[in-house]
Amino acid sequence: MIPPDTHLQIGSLLFEGLDQIDLTGPFEILARIPNSTYRIYAATPDPVRDVRGLRILPDATLAEAPRLDVLHVPGGQGQEALMRDPAVLGWIRQQAAGATHILSVCTGALILGAAGLLVGRRATTYWNAVHLLPFFGAEPVDARVVIDRDGEERSWVFAAGVTAGIDGALQLAAELRGEEAARGIQLGMQYAPEPPFDSGTPRTAPPAIVEATRARAADLTARREATARAIAAELGIRTPEPVPAR
Amino acid sequence: MIPPDTHLQIGSLLFEGLDQIDLTGPFEILARIPNSTYRIYAATPDPVRDVRGLRILPDATLAEAPRLDVLHVPGGQGQEALMRDPAVLGWIRQQAAGATHILSVCTGALILGAAGLLVGRRATTYWNAVHLLPFFGAEPVDARVVIDRDGEERSWVFAAGVTAGIDGALQLAAELRGEEAARGIQLGMQYAPEPPFDSGTPRTAPPAIVEATRARAADLTARREATARAIAAELGIRTPEPVPAR
Repeated sequence: MIPPDTHLQIGSLLFEGLDQIDLTGPFEILARIPNSTYRIYAATPDPVRDVRGLRILPDATLAEAPRLDVLHVPGGQGQEALMRDPAVLGWIRQQAAGATHILSVCTGALILGAAGLLVGRRATTYWNAVHLLPFFGAEPVDARVVIDRDGEERSWVFAAGVTAGIDGALQLAAELRGEEAARGIQLGMQYAPEPPFDSGTPRTAPPAIVEATRARAADLTARREATARAIAAELGIRTPEPVPAR
Repeated sequence: MIPPDTHLQIGSLLFEGLDQIDLTGPFEILARIPNSTYRIYAATPDPVRDVRGLRILPDATLAEAPRLDVLHVPGGQGQEALMRDPAVLGWIRQQAAGATHILSVCTGALILGAAGLLVGRRATTYWNAVHLLPFFGAEPVDARVVIDRDGEERSWVFAAGVTAGIDGALQLAAELRGEEAARGIQLGMQYAPEPPFDSGTPRTAPPAIVEATRARAADLTARREATARAIAAELGIRTPEPVPAR
């Protein structure tokens, strides 16, 4: 927990083709952290379009961001382009170096990987991308939220796919401001989920649905793997044997 | 379930001061309903600011909306102003009359109430507003998602507060396109929630946190009740005795 009288600068990265709830799920929590300033940052001031067309406006550009205490990196298909964007990767590296807490959601973890920030870390990401983590030197952990710490200095909160960002952000809220503050935010957003079906993971969903989802994403998954291999080579990480996606 | 070859027009209402996840939670699902067009509608084409400052752009204005099959009404503090906005209430009434499915999230139910659409219905809303439902002629039901049907003609899906919109939208997806489609969407968004605390309802949160939350919202709750009483009078609903908030 950070001293309550320390004002926190919290920032989310917004980029074209993100999966909007990777941002807007944590938004609901990050925007309510006591004694903090929360802003959404993007490369330009223009509206950004999520993978399904939701248009969100950033609050400021990357260049305008102060040193952030908390950096939030969402994922989504647009992560592919970002993994080849030296300006954004440089910004992430610089902000992560100054931050005490980093939250990645879904394939946001792959962006951190492309920035060289996952080497030696325990991490997680979207279920259909978790086999790519070793290309970035990370050890995949089978959990909805994984917290990896650089001693006392810095904590990395990795949330699995998409809606896992809500659970990850609540854990982050507790890390930042204590459990009572996090519980208050949870009550305010009436977060007592009751999914009508038990199909949120490849272990629980009917196998035919899992296979259909994998098949639909096959091209994207192949592109992600090609990018991951290229980055592994650049980072000097011994390319792991292909692991079958779980 | 609607015949799979029937193309669906799905629309969400966007308004100033909404609670963004009332919109963006269901967005994740509504934007993935097979054979449908999904758009976000607002009074003007300008960006709309959520209660904590997230700026979202609508896809089109209310006047440009076609007859919708599915109407989604989010909530949030901005619902107060909308309850006194005859143009928006008229639009909601007209769209609801033509729709087969209406989804309300959080205090979106109060907006439907102000439009006179809750009389005689079983409904739910945000936990700290559920005592206001009788002012609109509705019977409050203590459930996260309540489905009320006009025979075969029309279904009303009421989701409780804020994040309940995700559960409500998944139930709606199953109503529209069957359980398999809904399960596929659930897997895609890895919706297997694991809240780190059990504080999402006033029954499970520590009493001190519940009281603090109520106290912080006391002015808003009082304004909402005054508006509800005035609308009850206009609708000719016998004003119920004040019920203590649960």
